[in-house]
Amino acid sequence: MPVKSPVIVDLKFIPEEVDAALVSAFPGREVINLADPVHEGRDLKGIDYAVVWKSAPDLFSRAPDLKVVFSGGAGVDHVLTLPGLPEVPLVRFVDRSLTTRMSEWVVMQCLLHLRQHRAYEARAKAHIWEDLIQPEAADITVGVMGLGVLGQDAITKLSMMGFKTVGWSRSKKHIEGTGTFDADGLDVFLSKTDFLVGLLPLTDETRGIFNAGLFAKLSRKGPFGAPVFINGGRGGSQVETDILSSLESGTLGAASLDVFEQEPLSKNSPFWDMDNVYVTPHVAASSDVKALFSHVEQQIERFESGQPLQHLVDRKAGY
Amino acid sequence: MPVKSPVIVDLKFIPEEVDAALVSAFPGREVINLADPVHEGRDLKGIDYAVVWKSAPDLFSRAPDLKVVFSGGAGVDHVLTLPGLPEVPLVRFVDRSLTTRMSEWVVMQCLLHLRQHRAYEARAKAHIWEDLIQPEAADITVGVMGLGVLGQDAITKLSMMGFKTVGWSRSKKHIEGTGTFDADGLDVFLSKTDFLVGLLPLTDETRGIFNAGLFAKLSRKGPFGAPVFINGGRGGSQVETDILSSLESGTLGAASLDVFEQEPLSKNSPFWDMDNVYVTPHVAASSDVKALFSHVEQQIERFESGQPLQHLVDRKAGY
Ligand SMILES: NC(=O)c1ccc[n+]([C@@H]2O[C@H](COP(=O)([O-])OP(=O)(O)OC[C@H]3O[C@@H](n4cnc5c(N)ncnc54)[C@H](OP(=O)(O)O)[C@@H]3O)[C@@H](O)[C@H]2O)c1
Ligand SMILES: NC(=O)c1ccc[n+]([C@@H]2O[C@H](COP(=O)([O-])OP(=O)(O)OC[C@H]3O[C@@H](n4cnc5c(N)ncnc54)[C@H](OP(=O)(O)O)[C@@H]3O)[C@@H](O)[C@H]2O)c1
Repeated sequence: MPVKSPVIVDLKFIPEEVDAALVSAFPGREVINLADPVHEGRDLKGIDYAVVWKSAPDLFSRAPDLKVVFSGGAGVDHVLTLPGLPEVPLVRFVDRSLTTRMSEWVVMQCLLHLRQHRAYEARAKAHIWEDLIQPEAADITVGVMGLGVLGQDAITKLSMMGFKTVGWSRSKKHIEGTGTFDADGLDVFLSKTDFLVGLLPLTDETRGIFNAGLFAKLSRKGPFGAPVFINGGRGGSQVETDILSSLESGTLGAASLDVFEQEPLSKNSPFWDMDNVYVTPHVAASSDVKALFSHVEQQIERFESGQPLQHLVDRKAGY
Repeated sequence: MPVKSPVIVDLKFIPEEVDAALVSAFPGREVINLADPVHEGRDLKGIDYAVVWKSAPDLFSRAPDLKVVFSGGAGVDHVLTLPGLPEVPLVRFVDRSLTTRMSEWVVMQCLLHLRQHRAYEARAKAHIWEDLIQPEAADITVGVMGLGVLGQDAITKLSMMGFKTVGWSRSKKHIEGTGTFDADGLDVFLSKTDFLVGLLPLTDETRGIFNAGLFAKLSRKGPFGAPVFINGGRGGSQVETDILSSLESGTLGAASLDVFEQEPLSKNSPFWDMDNVYVTPHVAASSDVKALFSHVEQQIERFESGQPLQHLVDRKAGY
């Protein structure tokens, strides 16, 4: 039996989580975890596979013979811009746990806004017992931009919680009980949307799509008047100066942001302190590292036994 | 046609909501809204129906001829202790909107604890971008005490969000995919439970049931170690000094409380300021006043046409 090619691991995740997951990962195959200083300066020629997330800029020059590159996350925008990315299949991470984690975040953010959480927290801080007029989920239409693996799961769960839902994607989808729209239907989609959820990949087409012009087209007929913007996709799709000015002018009533144009978010960003903004540090759906490695194992097995790889990225479309 | 009996309305809700809902309620029937000073001192003899929530202590002596009493909420503990409550059918409020609102609150509280919301809020306040090790819903077992209309809906939605679930009630229930327990199984139920959700009515049997002894039997094997207590039922079921001491000793890791032994919660309650406690002012599932009146209309129609009333309270059981 030929010796199995090692796997390069270059993941800027929580190191202990990577170490713990590696204990039982890739049986019978060497793992070169570049976070381990023992591999510094190691020759990476002749190696077939790399699993990467925010990898070192010199990775691909050090490892020129890769046959498949695996993204450590669902999004691949950062991988596509890595210097020297070879013209080999690029596989993204799709996983039950990643998907359900994103839906946890999306549903929680929608509920926080629906249930006026910050208003109740402010009252609690002042020791004030006071109930507010409370719409129910069915009074709110959540519009989801991006109906891929994540967007579709989020819509299922939002509907189940009672929210009305509409969705938008490049190619028109059919989702039971949800009005769906494609590029041509964007303005109608926006006019129906009280809470806007972004679950788009970052591509040339989606860069800066969440801007003042788009926010101005959102519904103002919901029970809270002003619409809410919730982004769990990519920061590059949003124009933060426009989010700020829209929040100030009342074009937007509130926001939940997990992703930012620059990450980590600058220490002096106004978002941190805004009463109507929830900030999370790109943790909406962290990759479960064990699940990531078992997904990579599975795909390597397919590759080595001649079956087609799954979850391949379309480089032209950019996702 | 005989003149229809008026309906007495004595609801300590947000007055504007009651007024708005009354505009179109009870067509062809006089409404005596006791919040309106015009009815002060009015003779209420001979009137058949009253819809009550925290009604005036002299209501039943002023209205001695009631044939049906309607509770303005799902719980009836406060109605059952009203002085002079006549021996007539007591109907509680069951409604789609009330049920889904409670599930919004329960799911949101479980997600707040799961997703370490307060820890992220503290980091945001300090402008710190830092991700935490994050369990997923499937790593947590939510145990629901009370498997009535509210408990069963909450379990369905928690499961759908990915949580594992177990349930406990007086008579054993069968719920697909959920381990269920009755009185004899309480200790086993508790030993499996990471997040405990209370959705019990307040009765002689449930008074003070959420106490230090019970908290000590909860699971400590969950990803956060210490269990979480979430109460959306009735404050009389909880022993607040025990919640405090259990939070202090680490027997409980955190809590979400919508209900309290004394409401409104005292200005100097320590709960208001605790980092690991979410306080809401008995708003988990406010009655939608329009829905309440249409439910009462429906039941009156049944009553007047000789059909049996629905959602009758079992006075002996106390719910
Ligand atoms: N914050 C986090 O923690 C986190 C975690 C994981 C993922 N993410 C982000 O979430 C994104 C979505 O993930 P996914 O797995 O759902 O991706 P996916 O399955 O590839 O779905 C992408 C969706 O976006 C739509 N789309 C792409 N470009 C579009 C355009 N120009 N106009 C309209 N619709 C467009 C696609 O339309 P079609 O259906 O027509 O192809 C598809 O519905 C990822 O790319 C990643 O950036 C964030
Ligand atoms: N915070 C709020 O805003 C809010 C709003 C609405 C309601 N609530 C509270 O929520 C409570 C539950 O509402 P619901 O509509 O779900 O009531 P329900 O349909 O009457 O269900 C009550 C459940 O509790 C169980 N139960 C009662 N006594 C018990 C005991 N001694 N031991 C074990 N289980 C017992 C019942 O068991 P069986 O199935 O065997 O009968 C049943 O499963 C209400 O009574 C009310 O107090 C709070």
